[in-house]
Amino acid sequence: MNKSDFVTRISKVAGALTMAGKDLLLVSPGADLRYLIGYDALPLERLTCLAVNAEGRSWLIVPKLELPAAMASGVADIPVQLLDWEETQNPYELLASEIGQIKAPIANNLMWLEKAKFLGNAFGVELELANELLSDLRLVKSSFEIDALHEAGHAIDRVHSSMEKWLKPGRTEREVGRDIAAAIIQEGHVTVDFVIVASGPNGASPHHELSDRVIGLGDPIVVDIGGTMPSGYCSDSTRMYVCGQPPADFLEKYEILKVAQQLAFEQAAIGVTCASIDSAARDYLSANGLGEFFIHRTGHGIGMDTHENPYIVQGNQEVVRSGFAFSIEPGFYIPGLYGARIEDIVTCEDGQVKSANNTSHDLVIL
Amino acid sequence: MNKSDFVTRISKVAGALTMAGKDLLLVSPGADLRYLIGYDALPLERLTCLAVNAEGRSWLIVPKLELPAAMASGVADIPVQLLDWEETQNPYELLASEIGQIKAPIANNLMWLEKAKFLGNAFGVELELANELLSDLRLVKSSFEIDALHEAGHAIDRVHSSMEKWLKPGRTEREVGRDIAAAIIQEGHVTVDFVIVASGPNGASPHHELSDRVIGLGDPIVVDIGGTMPSGYCSDSTRMYVCGQPPADFLEKYEILKVAQQLAFEQAAIGVTCASIDSAARDYLSANGLGEFFIHRTGHGIGMDTHENPYIVQGNQEVVRSGFAFSIEPGFYIPGLYGARIEDIVTCEDGQVKSANNTSHDLVIL
Repeated sequence: MNKSDFVTRISKVAGALTMAGKDLLLVSPGADLRYLIGYDALPLERLTCLAVNAEGRSWLIVPKLELPAAMASGVADIPVQLLDWEETQNPYELLASEIGQIKAPIANNLMWLEKAKFLGNAFGVELELANELLSDLRLVKSSFEIDALHEAGHAIDRVHSSMEKWLKPGRTEREVGRDIAAAIIQEGHVTVDFVIVASGPNGASPHHELSDRVIGLGDPIVVDIGGTMPSGYCSDSTRMYVCGQPPADFLEKYEILKVAQQLAFEQAAIGVTCASIDSAARDYLSANGLGEFFIHRTGHGIGMDTHENPYIVQGNQEVVRSGFAFSIEPGFYIPGLYGARIEDIVTCEDGQVKSANNTSHDLVIL
Repeated sequence: MNKSDFVTRISKVAGALTMAGKDLLLVSPGADLRYLIGYDALPLERLTCLAVNAEGRSWLIVPKLELPAAMASGVADIPVQLLDWEETQNPYELLASEIGQIKAPIANNLMWLEKAKFLGNAFGVELELANELLSDLRLVKSSFEIDALHEAGHAIDRVHSSMEKWLKPGRTEREVGRDIAAAIIQEGHVTVDFVIVASGPNGASPHHELSDRVIGLGDPIVVDIGGTMPSGYCSDSTRMYVCGQPPADFLEKYEILKVAQQLAFEQAAIGVTCASIDSAARDYLSANGLGEFFIHRTGHGIGMDTHENPYIVQGNQEVVRSGFAFSIEPGFYIPGLYGARIEDIVTCEDGQVKSANNTSHDLVIL
């Protein structure tokens, strides 16, 4: 990333505001803010907020104690006007008085309601949602961003490749999860975003995280892990493990799942709809008796957030374009018995769909 | 925590709603939700939301794929009505149609604006802020909660006590921070919430996190770290380190800071105002020439969030009561040179103010 990328992004926001008939975008800390100006601000109770108007002017208000952190992130090098506020000042009114008269402001979708209300009051007009204005910008990734997603993919692949060090019968999911979390950091992430170790019947819960359940011989184990790299881009990959021999009926279903994941990957191409990628996996699972056990969508976009547009879900007629990046992660979940999921992140560039995760899809027998 | 605590909390919400003339509270994932029903839900784009009405009836809507995780958290044992939704349903309308006619709903302050707007549309009436309704409940901690904060304090103290293993001249802040993050997990936290290693001039930025700066001999180093325990309660403690001999002028100022921190701790007592605790530290720093370099408040409440009420800040006339828990963390920040901060979490119970952090306040020379 360099200065000119941020300048371009701010100018795209200004253009999108004009198109939408809005005059100001307000952005709170999180991936949207980092995407626009490179500042990975703390999402705390004190107000930090970027404002961009339809003419492309921008302001960043930060608490005085975070001004050095904002400067260190490079915001001094891009044409954004910095405003800092002291602990006893009202930052909402300070920002509004600096910007002046506004008629139709919008806020990024994940702004805390509290901040949206206080900003709305200070500007004297209710904030509307930015809706797709920001996610549309973030949807199409540059080569730099796609490289960053592949770098994140390599890092999480290295963690999966070392799983035999930690995943052993007799240990609890929580003990294993703690070691995996440490490895996610050691392999180059700056934060651990989630660690799912779901053994045996816990695998039937797609968003199970960790428990004190002791891993037994023959338990199929879902390991779904991810973190954020220094670049700000996220990793997310799921592989299946077992200590010893899994049940024969599990193995049969797992072979079906492998084919379903591969079919969705083969369907993924520039010009197809997101829904059609979902269908490729779903139809095959359904034709093989597993449709009712595949209880979630096939995937989600990924970038500076782990979940962002595009969603690979039934009904989504969005057409895949160059620059898209998303997960392909069909699964099956049999209550009381076990679950399974295989997840890769794929990226689209130069007409090619490539996987950022490249460890084997085979069930890993430890 | 047991089932009856959650039942009591829901009933307190119902009472507070009635007092406030509101008829429904909507709570999104985060500490508020975990506090009310014990469910540590994922803060993702799919709607998970607790609704409590003024009669004390409650509903929890969750994505179907997260229903097992919600059940595992124990929500099936408390009288909350569970609603699950499938990927192709509209959860906002499902929840609204289940609850029926509502006139004055409020939402927890940290709800994403997007969810607040969609919920407001579904109910046909704009959501107002819960404001202090929830933070007032969470402000006064039970013995169970205070014990949990002390347990968190012990865990982070163990990390500070091992700092000599990682903090060495020639290593970068980022390398040291990575090891500290792993230790935060190994000592019993389930998440790493923040790791600040601010060496030399970086210490002048109170919310600096990590950089590639190489730690040099004689650099004062601010180490401010915290995480969340399995109980959901947070740790947060800052200590000062140096490899070799620090500048003499730093040592002089550091002795002043130690006294300022101690004075604020001695001022903290049942019945005093939060502002008076801030003043105890601030006045001493000012009287000794460091007032202009103490650029933040003296502390923040802590519980299931690292920052929550009460804030130990100028102007806050809130009176300390039994059950309060907050940080005492004065500091000084000299641009271009160095910074320093000493931070303990203190709790109020049975008329006593106790520190949850008990490593020495002396500058640690490694």
